[in-house]
Amino acid sequence: MALALDGGFELAAGAFSASSERSRAAGAELGLARERTYASFTEMAEAEAGSDSERRIDLAVIVTPNHLHTAAAAAFLERGVAVACDKPLATRLEDAEKLVKLAAGRRRYGDPAPDPTSPGARSLPLGMVTYNYSGYPMVKEARALVRTGRIGEVRKVIVEYVQGWLANLLEAPENAGEPGFKQAEWRSDPTRGGPSPVLGDIGTHAHHLLRYVTGLEPERIFAKLSAQVPGRLVHDDATVLLELAGGATGLLHASQVATGERNHLRIRVYGSEGGIDWRQETPEELRLLKPDGSTTVLHRAAGATSPAAGRASRLPGGHPEGFIEGFANLYAAFGADLRRDRTAPENSSPDERRSDEETDYPTFEDGAAGVRFVEQAVESAESGNWVDAEAIFPDGPTDRSPDTSRDSP
Amino acid sequence: MALALDGGFELAAGAFSASSERSRAAGAELGLARERTYASFTEMAEAEAGSDSERRIDLAVIVTPNHLHTAAAAAFLERGVAVACDKPLATRLEDAEKLVKLAAGRRRYGDPAPDPTSPGARSLPLGMVTYNYSGYPMVKEARALVRTGRIGEVRKVIVEYVQGWLANLLEAPENAGEPGFKQAEWRSDPTRGGPSPVLGDIGTHAHHLLRYVTGLEPERIFAKLSAQVPGRLVHDDATVLLELAGGATGLLHASQVATGERNHLRIRVYGSEGGIDWRQETPEELRLLKPDGSTTVLHRAAGATSPAAGRASRLPGGHPEGFIEGFANLYAAFGADLRRDRTAPENSSPDERRSDEETDYPTFEDGAAGVRFVEQAVESAESGNWVDAEAIFPDGPTDRSPDTSRDSP
Amino acid sequence: MALALDGGFELAAGAFSASSERSRAAGAELGLARERTYASFTEMAEAEAGSDSERRIDLAVIVTPNHLHTAAAAAFLERGVAVACDKPLATRLEDAEKLVKLAAGRRRYGDPAPDPTSPGARSLPLGMVTYNYSGYPMVKEARALVRTGRIGEVRKVIVEYVQGWLANLLEAPENAGEPGFKQAEWRSDPTRGGPSPVLGDIGTHAHHLLRYVTGLEPERIFAKLSAQVPGRLVHDDATVLLELAGGATGLLHASQVATGERNHLRIRVYGSEGGIDWRQETPEELRLLKPDGSTTVLHRAAGATSPAAGRASRLPGGHPEGFIEGFANLYAAFGADLRRDRTAPENSSPDERRSDEETDYPTFEDGAAGVRFVEQAVESAESGNWVDAEAIFPDGPTDRSPDTSRDSP
Amino acid sequence: MALALDGGFELAAGAFSASSERSRAAGAELGLARERTYASFTEMAEAEAGSDSERRIDLAVIVTPNHLHTAAAAAFLERGVAVACDKPLATRLEDAEKLVKLAAGRRRYGDPAPDPTSPGARSLPLGMVTYNYSGYPMVKEARALVRTGRIGEVRKVIVEYVQGWLANLLEAPENAGEPGFKQAEWRSDPTRGGPSPVLGDIGTHAHHLLRYVTGLEPERIFAKLSAQVPGRLVHDDATVLLELAGGATGLLHASQVATGERNHLRIRVYGSEGGIDWRQETPEELRLLKPDGSTTVLHRAAGATSPAAGRASRLPGGHPEGFIEGFANLYAAFGADLRRDRTAPENSSPDERRSDEETDYPTFEDGAAGVRFVEQAVESAESGNWVDAEAIFPDGPTDRSPDTSRDSP
Repeated sequence: MALALDGGFELAAGAFSASSERSRAAGAELGLARERTYASFTEMAEAEAGSDSERRIDLAVIVTPNHLHTAAAAAFLERGVAVACDKPLATRLEDAEKLVKLAAGRRRYGDPAPDPTSPGARSLPLGMVTYNYSGYPMVKEARALVRTGRIGEVRKVIVEYVQGWLANLLEAPENAGEPGFKQAEWRSDPTRGGPSPVLGDIGTHAHHLLRYVTGLEPERIFAKLSAQVPGRLVHDDATVLLELAGGATGLLHASQVATGERNHLRIRVYGSEGGIDWRQETPEELRLLKPDGSTTVLHRAAGATSPAAGRASRLPGGHPEGFIEGFANLYAAFGADLRRDRTAPENSSPDERRSDEETDYPTFEDGAAGVRFVEQAVESAESGNWVDAEAIFPDGPTDRSPDTSRDSP
Repeated sequence: MALALDGGFELAAGAFSASSERSRAAGAELGLARERTYASFTEMAEAEAGSDSERRIDLAVIVTPNHLHTAAAAAFLERGVAVACDKPLATRLEDAEKLVKLAAGRRRYGDPAPDPTSPGARSLPLGMVTYNYSGYPMVKEARALVRTGRIGEVRKVIVEYVQGWLANLLEAPENAGEPGFKQAEWRSDPTRGGPSPVLGDIGTHAHHLLRYVTGLEPERIFAKLSAQVPGRLVHDDATVLLELAGGATGLLHASQVATGERNHLRIRVYGSEGGIDWRQETPEELRLLKPDGSTTVLHRAAGATSPAAGRASRLPGGHPEGFIEGFANLYAAFGADLRRDRTAPENSSPDERRSDEETDYPTFEDGAAGVRFVEQAVESAESGNWVDAEAIFPDGPTDRSPDTSRDSP
Repeated sequence: MALALDGGFELAAGAFSASSERSRAAGAELGLARERTYASFTEMAEAEAGSDSERRIDLAVIVTPNHLHTAAAAAFLERGVAVACDKPLATRLEDAEKLVKLAAGRRRYGDPAPDPTSPGARSLPLGMVTYNYSGYPMVKEARALVRTGRIGEVRKVIVEYVQGWLANLLEAPENAGEPGFKQAEWRSDPTRGGPSPVLGDIGTHAHHLLRYVTGLEPERIFAKLSAQVPGRLVHDDATVLLELAGGATGLLHASQVATGERNHLRIRVYGSEGGIDWRQETPEELRLLKPDGSTTVLHRAAGATSPAAGRASRLPGGHPEGFIEGFANLYAAFGADLRRDRTAPENSSPDERRSDEETDYPTFEDGAAGVRFVEQAVESAESGNWVDAEAIFPDGPTDRSPDTSRDSP
Repeated sequence: MALALDGGFELAAGAFSASSERSRAAGAELGLARERTYASFTEMAEAEAGSDSERRIDLAVIVTPNHLHTAAAAAFLERGVAVACDKPLATRLEDAEKLVKLAAGRRRYGDPAPDPTSPGARSLPLGMVTYNYSGYPMVKEARALVRTGRIGEVRKVIVEYVQGWLANLLEAPENAGEPGFKQAEWRSDPTRGGPSPVLGDIGTHAHHLLRYVTGLEPERIFAKLSAQVPGRLVHDDATVLLELAGGATGLLHASQVATGERNHLRIRVYGSEGGIDWRQETPEELRLLKPDGSTTVLHRAAGATSPAAGRASRLPGGHPEGFIEGFANLYAAFGADLRRDRTAPENSSPDERRSDEETDYPTFEDGAAGVRFVEQAVESAESGNWVDAEAIFPDGPTDRSPDTSRDSP
């Protein structure tokens, strides 16, 4: 639905099940031709990423269980097909790092493929991780407010993601057939869901949101991880203390046993001059806390004034947008970047030529940062010690030029 | 976007401006072929509603200024093309009644057209009015709660729709170029916007919402209408007192001068056993008020249990849906009805064969009821008297079989 | 509790029941001496309002059923004892007018009583009506915002007071013994509760709140009144359309059959430059709506800056105050006025010498305005016509000098 | 005000300043006789706690800076006068333990003092700590819901207390004269405010609330403490991870640099069958989260049904109570316990005879538990290790018999 919303991409092929029959049935329901439905991503990559420009797809979307992300993404990237991958990017950091390299150096989106080694050609990334919550307009507004100094120097960040769907042992065999059982089943199997699913599945969203809004990287972390439901084999609850670059203190907590919560992702950032507060379940609102104790509630397209929030908005204020639009904003930004003219003056560096708008989607570097966060949190929880959380790549996340044109609200 | 979301319809042709050039430019941006963009709906109807099945469109969507609805809708209906028309259906009741007749007796959607006079053939309506707020899942939940007796006998209904975008004289010539000026300009011209735009543009939404949720028709009404902004030629504020069938009392108020409000549509229904409260700007929540003074907040796909709400839902609870999905639900229901097999046992009456699900979209009868409501309110306000509000069609709105399968929350 | 809170008054005597025994028992529980509890207000007035300065009380608080307000208040006023009377001040306008006169000309609070006819003596009012909701700090902030032009010219006012406690026939004899039965019983008896209890008991609160916050008087009104519960003899639901001085439009609605509502009193005022929104059940917050669609939530003692709100506040922001403090603010203001020095330069008029602070409590004129509002609404509802609502006193409500010292938020 | 509200205690004497003059001025303003105002608590204890029954006070309320609590409380307790002490009970655990012993064994409230060694006499505690937030009715409702199993087995607890008043260096000398400076000044001096003021001043409130609502004691804790404002000498931000008895996981965080927050204390408890959520700034509401994702909002005196919540409530539902009433509930419960008949059958143990109602106020044991919590958190933060948090007294907090009579909502 998110891909269809803006008409930027069209569904052309798919691998929906390891059973040919089921995959075809699913494809048929989506209107795909029989010959373009496959029983494996390998088969699909071979058939759809070849030189046949009629059939060559522009983008592969990976929504498999976590442990298959790496192989699936690699199969397409190695053939120069761009990839949008669900989080966590991988279940092991070394896999994530491999994907980062694959996505970085092989820009061949579209046809014909540019030669990334030729002078004047730009080699743009082929990967996006669907940290979809960063696609909400009011998250972009929050980021603009923080980045432009509206709340002063950041002193404290609290990000939480609490759900209740695993409040009981849904993955127990006797629940087969219950809604959510299949999801619960593979996610609570360490070999498929990864080392700490509460962190991998929702903690990485919180981690990315914190980095996206504040631009701050964790320098040291301390984690408490546990399985709160008797009989569960994996973590369903996580609290992580963070020391952030520049001296801010951070708290990230995530849970899947918060009975009665649906999908409560929330970020609060407190600075020397104000605070911001955003909640995913009412995504159209952003609270701006003032030092005098009053609060201004900004609404999408009504009081929110950053260019980034404006670009990410489709409807007038008061006409609620939601989850699908947020996802669609990621695809729109990634799609625009993929389609961009890849030639540029010979002596300019890529970074100089890319604006905030051009890079406003989560990259594979962001995905790898999330995987590293999970590994470090597990290490901390197991050892009972603080862990250094050096940036995965020496230069930290790509710095994006802040919005400087916004009016103060 | 709403049409694209589910893939049920595809944009094939359009008339976007009275200027051929502009219309073509707009069409090109939407990916339409040059020969299928037109400078008038008449031209389009002639070209796209003929016998050429290659070109024959299935549905025309009318989003012109209000005074053109009738001619545009008629142009397509007379050629057997189904129509989705923006509210108000017309600016005069007699026009609305004409459209009701056109839509009712000429079912020719698809190809080949059935002969509505042959025994066993069903003549289904060709018209929908986009009272889009009735497409929200939690509005459907509210309707199910009221219809299944969850709040007992209805005693009082309050529906309000307040906006602030016309809080000042936006339509003044000196504001040409301001955001919203064009909308303000035609809406505040009585010859284009209709007799009372605050009622026609937003009051009819409130009126439909009241009827949709409660199933009750106004029997008598009293209205106060005014232009609160100096210099304005049309009503921008309306309050209507209602006596509803069965003895309930009703209050409907709408304003476009409620400075700072975005799009605040809200309905409250109080019965002998409870109350319900729904607000458009947070559409995923429905409040169920209990006699003991506690309130249960039902969320879409999490605590809301009626089949109608379930059918209208796309995502898990906590993943916000919004305005576009509500619109899409209307198109989906209308599309399903249009595509339905139109043959049925000879001796069954149409109504017996149509379920709640089959008719869960606003019909032209609903549209005409809105136009009548506007006319009666104006009559009341001008005379200072209560006005009888007999149902426009002797049998009232089509009775829809209530959901009876829902579990009590 | 409200009288005790600030220590400004001390309970000294009382008449709690027509039964001597019960009255004494109630008095004893409150710590009163046996000889200062009475079986009637007449008896009490005679004994406690005499010349015996030991026993002479300073203030009588009237909380009888509505039909006894007049006689009780008169008994004390005629003896020069100040009176705080529950609303409605009376059940008939002529009684209210009589009380206004009694309270106005007989200032004898304290001992010795001043001679109101002597030059230089001020004759201050002896009456207050406990429209307690005007005692909330954030109501005072709202008033200051409106009065100082913060929201521009007032265009629309909506005030509502909805409750659910009479959603069923609580006054039926079979409910004797149920909580609330006694209240329901006398209130639903027209000879004791007055002509329209929904208006008298809660509608007058809404009416006063509207006048207090906006300073605007109704010029014409139209009312719809009804008994929504089968078997009820009096109105339990009211909607009143208002034309306000200066051209603003008004809507006042009140109900006792809004099942599940507790005590939902709310006022919204929309002006040319902004709007305000206050709700009694969360009294510490005041919403200030901005033309751009954003909303600033002001909190008591944190962001609220008018002197009047400051004076009415006891605790730091974030430490919730409530109903009792609001009541106490009325007693504090009335008490201060009663204790004020009553001598003043000979040739100054009383009004010139009284500040906003000095008169910040509801007077008997305000009480009589409420009684008049009820009578006019009944007249309108019975006739089906608009009714002229000329101000009860030629000069309208005492104009209170606005706060001009507040900083803009 | 809280003492005055119910009339249970009357202000009789006081030491308001180390300056005789200022103390007398303050006393005079409060209506105290000159000879009963003092320049030190020692002087006051000597004069007011002697054998002169005319002058002997029943209760001393300690609201000095933290470092004086111990000496002041001891001065009265040693003379058999009951003490209500502000939190933290002391700045060192050994002082707190000393006070626990003083309060426990010396019951001499009232006159004549009972002989606690005589058979049949009960020796009741003489101490209360004003953890006032446990006095709110809806906190008592939360406790009743958790204790009676309404949310099943407790799995996760989150308690937070965030404020913004110290977001900048208010204690800097150049701010002398600013509102709050004096408070900031002594609280940010380690010798007067204690080892970690963010924990001592607000963290102990959160700690008590967690224990009061859940009945669970921390078994292990890990803390991160910091000064987020440049130049500050003491902690202004704290996050504490908790392992709770029975396997629940806990998170407690407190901050004074959360710019824009007023007094945001909130507790969430998630169990196997539901969750509860309460927020101090809207204290009349308690959210009960249901496994299906719906939420029921219980209101004080309207939907809340536990006897404890009922006893703590003064007004009907919808008439907001607040901070003062919560405080008053503590005084009322402590006062009732002090006044209770202290004779009882010889062979019954004290605990057997004391109901939940009799002990529904925070004791000095609760106060000492808070002081211990602060010390342990500091130890953990300094060492970077988890710390065992054995209960201060071998038997844990006095178990209070749960409410068993409440109806399920």
